[in-house]
Amino acid sequence: MENNQTEISTLGEFGLIDRLTREMPVINDSTKIGVGDDAAVLDFADKETLVTTDLLLEGIHFDLRYVPLKHLGYKAAIVNFSDVYAMNGQPKQITVGLGVSSRFTVEHIEELYAGIRLACQQYGVDLVGGDTSASVTGLVISITCIGEVEKGKYVLRSGAKPTDIICVSGDLGAAYMGLQLLERENKVAAGAAPGFQPDFAGKEYILERQLKPEARGDIIRILAENSILPTAMMDVSDGLSSELLHICKDSNVGCRVYEDRIPIDYQTAVMAEEFNMDLIMAAMNGGEDYELLFTVPLTDNEKIEKLKGVTMIGYITKPELGAAMVTRDGQEMPISAQGWNAFTEDKK
Amino acid sequence: MENNQTEISTLGEFGLIDRLTREMPVINDSTKIGVGDDAAVLDFADKETLVTTDLLLEGIHFDLRYVPLKHLGYKAAIVNFSDVYAMNGQPKQITVGLGVSSRFTVEHIEELYAGIRLACQQYGVDLVGGDTSASVTGLVISITCIGEVEKGKYVLRSGAKPTDIICVSGDLGAAYMGLQLLERENKVAAGAAPGFQPDFAGKEYILERQLKPEARGDIIRILAENSILPTAMMDVSDGLSSELLHICKDSNVGCRVYEDRIPIDYQTAVMAEEFNMDLIMAAMNGGEDYELLFTVPLTDNEKIEKLKGVTMIGYITKPELGAAMVTRDGQEMPISAQGWNAFTEDKK
Repeated sequence: MENNQTEISTLGEFGLIDRLTREMPVINDSTKIGVGDDAAVLDFADKETLVTTDLLLEGIHFDLRYVPLKHLGYKAAIVNFSDVYAMNGQPKQITVGLGVSSRFTVEHIEELYAGIRLACQQYGVDLVGGDTSASVTGLVISITCIGEVEKGKYVLRSGAKPTDIICVSGDLGAAYMGLQLLERENKVAAGAAPGFQPDFAGKEYILERQLKPEARGDIIRILAENSILPTAMMDVSDGLSSELLHICKDSNVGCRVYEDRIPIDYQTAVMAEEFNMDLIMAAMNGGEDYELLFTVPLTDNEKIEKLKGVTMIGYITKPELGAAMVTRDGQEMPISAQGWNAFTEDKK
Repeated sequence: MENNQTEISTLGEFGLIDRLTREMPVINDSTKIGVGDDAAVLDFADKETLVTTDLLLEGIHFDLRYVPLKHLGYKAAIVNFSDVYAMNGQPKQITVGLGVSSRFTVEHIEELYAGIRLACQQYGVDLVGGDTSASVTGLVISITCIGEVEKGKYVLRSGAKPTDIICVSGDLGAAYMGLQLLERENKVAAGAAPGFQPDFAGKEYILERQLKPEARGDIIRILAENSILPTAMMDVSDGLSSELLHICKDSNVGCRVYEDRIPIDYQTAVMAEEFNMDLIMAAMNGGEDYELLFTVPLTDNEKIEKLKGVTMIGYITKPELGAAMVTRDGQEMPISAQGWNAFTEDKK
């Protein structure tokens, strides 16, 4: 045990939960009763309620050799907020389930919680419940997010219509390149002399996209301010290709996206060059971007053009045309899902 | 791989989720959109919303050597329903997060889901979302339950007042004795000849209490029918002693419970005798009973007396009197929490 570290067994489950959740202020009117009873009590009055859940497992979804616990907590919360925004909603509450193996101390878990709290503060979300337990194996994080949306204003994946414009926020592929970089530096560090410090200069953006992503609540606000209600929407967690195929399947449509319209940051491009990787493949299939992919009616064209941080990348077609990317030289390449799959990764 | 078993990687994450959640009928009006989008959409109209979450980890909360997967799924759902009932609410929706290691096949996970679905059917709950992922270690089950309660009718742990009557539903200690029996038979079987079958005759009740517990929605209905609104309530998951101390702490009161009033089934008593264990200790500290512990004003005395399946076990006192059990010979023994603690268990 390191200095100043407290074994979890000295507090026990209830002591640990008390310590993690004390002084947890409630900021939303919809939170009637937060942490500390059998269940939280919420009141969404005349709104509809959104619920989404995510399970993050050590060794599958994160690697603690290069992800600081505070960042991990922040990201674990953000990915859930992103799912609520992707329904055109506002995240309001989360519950946190933690499975903690004996190599973690109270201070480690406080670091993780500090990240979760920070995300909650930044996004105006209340932590209203949780379950903390020992784990015989690695760290397990299960977060459920509850949100609200005005009645009838939720946006599904199934509403895209032929001629709709396909839009995406921000840029793509950076989080994936950040992960490649972290994995490479981790390998280098393993064989390096003590005191080795990886050089991340000029790569801050792609690292931040991997380690501390943000959820695009700002885009939801901007769309509302401009009276744009998307016909379909989802967040880009598994990669643009995979998400486009979801929308095409659920909406029973096809799509065309243009290679030269895919938004990519220059750090992502430089890194792809350094790794000798196909930049467009990385942007299409990388995943973990947590940008919003959405479709709007063609008549919203002028409104969308004025929006900062939103790119029109293509359009929806009839289903029989399938899903394809139009390359720079005018070829049509079918889009296939090569996004991250936890089950095949497991077989490595 | 056994015969007729399908490796999960042949379906992938999305294929597995499709297979597990197809033909999942929606039964509650409050479920607008269930499985299949970024989040579920719920509408509780003029009710308040309850949210509770539980994390179950292999090797900590369950042992697959003697818990069939279908039972495990059923119990994982039930324990969450129990938390919603303990708020005086009705469970309406659940989300299920699963982490599955490669030793599990699609058929295994379907068994687990069959148990979850059965529980949902029996209790009128919709499965509205989930997240399924590979796990590098054991099975991880994370369930979040959403429920509803009429505005202002939720019951917390903090409302008990001196002179209130303490009540408990059903009987206590049986689930714990069932676990002792399963663990013993498992040890015997490990050293026995092939084909060995443990003899569980006359022990069906304690086994069922451990393997297939039920949540006491019937008690919530009976209380409402009799116009009884408890002042405090929680479910008995960690053991009666532990839960009594929670109510005393949160309500700032003390309590007296009578040894001879603790409801115990005769199979529990026989088993305690066989194991040479203290029966009252088992009933007070065993846990996993999923009965309801609640307090009512003294004026509800006559109403409660008429209720089947509810036992008055004592009364609430001023805080300075502390929490104690009055033994058969009139002694007062302080109540201490010796309920199950996942973190100290981990140290074995």
